[in-house]
Amino acid sequence: IGAGGRVITCRAAIAWTTNAPLTIEKVEVDPPKAGEVRIKIISSGICDTNKHILEGKDKVPFPAIWGHEGAGTVESIGEGVTRDKVLMFPLPECRECSSCLHPKSNFCLKERLVSISLTFFHPIYGTSRFTCRGRKIYHLYGTSTFTEYTVVHEIAVGKIDDDAPMDTVCILSCEVPTGFGAVFNIAKVRMFTPGSTCVVFGLGGIGSAVVMACKASGASRIIGVDIKEEKFPRARTLGVTDCLNPQKLKKPVQEVVVEMTGKGADFAFEAIGLIDTMVATLESCHPSYGVGVIIGLAPTNSQLIFDPMLLLSGRTLKGGALGNYKTRSCIPKMVTDYLQKKINLDPLITHTLPFESINKAFELLQGGHCIRCVLLF
Amino acid sequence: IGAGGRVITCRAAIAWTTNAPLTIEKVEVDPPKAGEVRIKIISSGICDTNKHILEGKDKVPFPAIWGHEGAGTVESIGEGVTRDKVLMFPLPECRECSSCLHPKSNFCLKERLVSISLTFFHPIYGTSRFTCRGRKIYHLYGTSTFTEYTVVHEIAVGKIDDDAPMDTVCILSCEVPTGFGAVFNIAKVRMFTPGSTCVVFGLGGIGSAVVMACKASGASRIIGVDIKEEKFPRARTLGVTDCLNPQKLKKPVQEVVVEMTGKGADFAFEAIGLIDTMVATLESCHPSYGVGVIIGLAPTNSQLIFDPMLLLSGRTLKGGALGNYKTRSCIPKMVTDYLQKKINLDPLITHTLPFESINKAFELLQGGHCIRCVLLF
Repeated sequence: IGAGGRVITCRAAIAWTTNAPLTIEKVEVDPPKAGEVRIKIISSGICDTNKHILEGKDKVPFPAIWGHEGAGTVESIGEGVTRDKVLMFPLPECRECSSCLHPKSNFCLKERLVSISLTFFHPIYGTSRFTCRGRKIYHLYGTSTFTEYTVVHEIAVGKIDDDAPMDTVCILSCEVPTGFGAVFNIAKVRMFTPGSTCVVFGLGGIGSAVVMACKASGASRIIGVDIKEEKFPRARTLGVTDCLNPQKLKKPVQEVVVEMTGKGADFAFEAIGLIDTMVATLESCHPSYGVGVIIGLAPTNSQLIFDPMLLLSGRTLKGGALGNYKTRSCIPKMVTDYLQKKINLDPLITHTLPFESINKAFELLQGGHCIRCVLLF
Repeated sequence: IGAGGRVITCRAAIAWTTNAPLTIEKVEVDPPKAGEVRIKIISSGICDTNKHILEGKDKVPFPAIWGHEGAGTVESIGEGVTRDKVLMFPLPECRECSSCLHPKSNFCLKERLVSISLTFFHPIYGTSRFTCRGRKIYHLYGTSTFTEYTVVHEIAVGKIDDDAPMDTVCILSCEVPTGFGAVFNIAKVRMFTPGSTCVVFGLGGIGSAVVMACKASGASRIIGVDIKEEKFPRARTLGVTDCLNPQKLKKPVQEVVVEMTGKGADFAFEAIGLIDTMVATLESCHPSYGVGVIIGLAPTNSQLIFDPMLLLSGRTLKGGALGNYKTRSCIPKMVTDYLQKKINLDPLITHTLPFESINKAFELLQGGHCIRCVLLF
């Protein structure tokens, strides 16, 4: 199907360096090799992680094509690939490794995230299917969706319903499962009696999804923490009952949370990716039964530092990627749930822009007015 | 009953300073005040924590009477106390605080452990019922069992069966519930399919109890880690399948464990109380579904430091005291289970000595030949 073995020339947003706008360039996209799929991108979300790498907090190689939330159609396939139309996932599912075979885990060991250094992932490490101005361009997180065409390994691709609305479902690639799964699968808020108290650090895209899931789990109190108060009105509509801006408090936010909740929250979620808020997450939890969940990606090579006595009293600290959903197996079902109106994604998309306006989208994200901006191709 | 309102003069082992033998002294024990119980000690275990405080790793006030595993009989009671004969617990159960009222937690908020600084606990903070040579002597962990008579708050005392063998049940005050509960209640090894791989850092008293519980939970492989190889033969009889001495390995022990288990153990337990082994515990776990459980008490004011990416792939890090058993409610039932031969404690007691030989007992503990020494009064 499609262009078959030919190189495609198309437009992509190239990140040449940190702290500079991306530039829309003509790129050549190689045909897919064995086990790979070339995909025509229809929409791409801009996850906050992209903002972190733009700001230089997460070390990645340059030049590269970023973006890891993508919906598209299969343009052509390499040897041995049979599937058809698709979401792309920053976490693959090989169905062969010990994580994939374990009933309770999703962190496929073919994902390079596991190598801590967070180098780029590509099925054939160190190679690339992108060329721009004669120079090889790096893939990122095995997806690279800020381009009209990308090449992805089939284990990072999930076929979705034919009638899925392609302008919105891209956020099911990362934002929605990461936030929902942190609550349903990792913290398991549902396992406790309705009326849990939850704290959510960060009210961006993923934090907002966490809030929605806490509310759906019957939490009686949801405390939202962010330094950008522009986010508070929207957060309240999603379920936040109390908003805290740590910069306006006279004492550390975790102390305020402990006072507000008696002795600490039942559950606390870190959806920012900063060490300080990770420690605050743990300290905000009830000493004996509190569960802290870390889903934000910390800056490269950072160290979490805390007194182990915080754990000895009974706290639990967990983490997870993509909400512990096995990506290919579970996320296409979430697309179906969305089509059947069992889950609602629409409040999580606040802006839609044409692909060409990608730098405008980054500005919106940095300004705090945007939960999630979707790029349309 | 008993001596009623009179002061009792008896013998106790006083710790005057770190790194020096305890001295057996005549002490005066005040009568119990409201809500307190004066207890005639029959036996006391020597937990490894006592060794840590002797070595100065855990900061405690001096002079003091140590010991927190105790079995005895009620000598006299203060106002409002009705219960009778007993184990003493380093963790009370007030049945009123948010931890006690929560179905899944045990860390009674009346325990001063929660205040991180690990200052001595006594029902009326800052007061003492012990006097020696005219000087007030500190209680420790709300128990102080290295004495013929002690005074304890009733919320830290549990009545046990009349026919309980008092020369052995004292280790149910801490060692046994801490180790068994780490496996059954905190890690929940039983929840996984039989055939789990477990790693146990530290093969002392608590580590040995962890090993027994892992075996009882159907673990197919139990890797024991200790620098004292004298412990290995006994550890094997309890269920350890592989023994590792980190000082004899060419690479970090966690790397060896990861290689031995493919990608990491299902469960790892820290039963030593050192920061390095706590990090090794986390790193020994499978990146995606591994659960690390910290039950060792770290040196005062120490900091656990690790890359949060270790959690992002899906690991869980938990802690707990007394195995998450609600002490007064659950531990007397373990005494009954022991009487009915449903649980076996005997392999966990390797030495029994008269109270006067307490310094000999500390030497045995430091030499690595002793899992648990019980003092008889």
